[in-house]
Amino acid sequence: MREVLAQAAFQLFLERGFERTTVDDIVARAGVGRRSFFRYFPSKEDVVFPDHERCLAEMTEFLAAVGDEDPVGAVCDAARIVLRMYAADPEFSVQRYRLTREVPGLRTYELSVVRRYEQTLAGHLRGRFGTDRDGELRAEVIAASVVAAHNNGLRLWLRSGGAGDPEEAVDHALDLVRGVWEQPAGPSPAREKPALPATAGASGVTAGSGENEVIVMVAAKGTPMWRVVQQIEAAVGEG
Amino acid sequence: MREVLAQAAFQLFLERGFERTTVDDIVARAGVGRRSFFRYFPSKEDVVFPDHERCLAEMTEFLAAVGDEDPVGAVCDAARIVLRMYAADPEFSVQRYRLTREVPGLRTYELSVVRRYEQTLAGHLRGRFGTDRDGELRAEVIAASVVAAHNNGLRLWLRSGGAGDPEEAVDHALDLVRGVWEQPAGPSPAREKPALPATAGASGVTAGSGENEVIVMVAAKGTPMWRVVQQIEAAVGEG
Repeated sequence: MREVLAQAAFQLFLERGFERTTVDDIVARAGVGRRSFFRYFPSKEDVVFPDHERCLAEMTEFLAAVGDEDPVGAVCDAARIVLRMYAADPEFSVQRYRLTREVPGLRTYELSVVRRYEQTLAGHLRGRFGTDRDGELRAEVIAASVVAAHNNGLRLWLRSGGAGDPEEAVDHALDLVRGVWEQPAGPSPAREKPALPATAGASGVTAGSGENEVIVMVAAKGTPMWRVVQQIEAAVGEG
Repeated sequence: MREVLAQAAFQLFLERGFERTTVDDIVARAGVGRRSFFRYFPSKEDVVFPDHERCLAEMTEFLAAVGDEDPVGAVCDAARIVLRMYAADPEFSVQRYRLTREVPGLRTYELSVVRRYEQTLAGHLRGRFGTDRDGELRAEVIAASVVAAHNNGLRLWLRSGGAGDPEEAVDHALDLVRGVWEQPAGPSPAREKPALPATAGASGVTAGSGENEVIVMVAAKGTPMWRVVQQIEAAVGEG
């Protein structure tokens, strides 16, 4: 029933525009009563985004169950829950993307949903960083970065018409954020093997072993900070 | 006239709520005609945020005139234009903050304004990074980080009731983002003097001089990436 209503609404939005479609039009097309509509959707906007509530709930549940050791990695993984929702129905997601770009009311609605995802991620990080210096600040900046990176990868896929696997672009985008903000855990076997990246601008090596292991980083002064970070990450085997 | 209308609207929103106040109520309180209202404000929401359009225009103008050498610094400075707008009228800003938190319609409107600031900053960075690898991605992530950092500092000040100078908190927040993302320019006199931070986790020194200057960074492996970045920044004299 939910899907039938969403399908009907979507057809109508595409045929006559979002603003000129009423809930009565939608229920007529779907062949059900008004009450059925409002049982499933609080408003006309919610028809366009039928899965965000479920997705937010899933994200909250995931973060409540996740361990403490890698909070930045955890919020990146939590963001991937949203990606999977989009990827589950490429045609619907692409249609919605086009519709949303054309209808200001839907764009604003989408912004408020995105904000709720961001606040969920920030809330998790605040809980993990809470007592650290700048904990709240870092929580909010990292959450915003993760959302921006996720949306960049997702948008690439949507713009391409939903062809192929969106995960690659999103993983790449999230890795950039993770590389900058991640708090490394203790040494792991993967990190024992030093990597020597061949980039001209910066190079990093690991020396020693175990708990006392250090990173020695040498970079030309003009090297951009994000590249320095990439190189350090590569050297410690997290690239 | 604009201020008179904004004042009247605000009093009414506080007295009877935003939703139950009409434009007619506002013009009656201000003692002017409906047409005057719409000459200044496209909608009731715009009364609550009377300066954002001007502020967006100022931001765009500022970024169009700014040099190429420090794009991340430039968008941080652009964000400070918004801060100054809030700081110019602490009482109004604090009242509005409280009102906005209580009225969903205003929150959504504010989100769309914030999104426009973010897109303005991202557009500037895209123009600067355009041909770089991951240029668009970095532009969007940095813009989102700058906005989140700015809003974190601003919110601290608003929550405190608008007491004191908000610039300190915002500067501190923006410095965190800048430290992570800034692309250093060529050597400057300020950077010739190496700083040796006393933090246990990480230390950085600069060696050599002029164009061939390098950063040597030594850090214990468990050091969080953001602290490494802070230390490198401190070492190159930008902390």
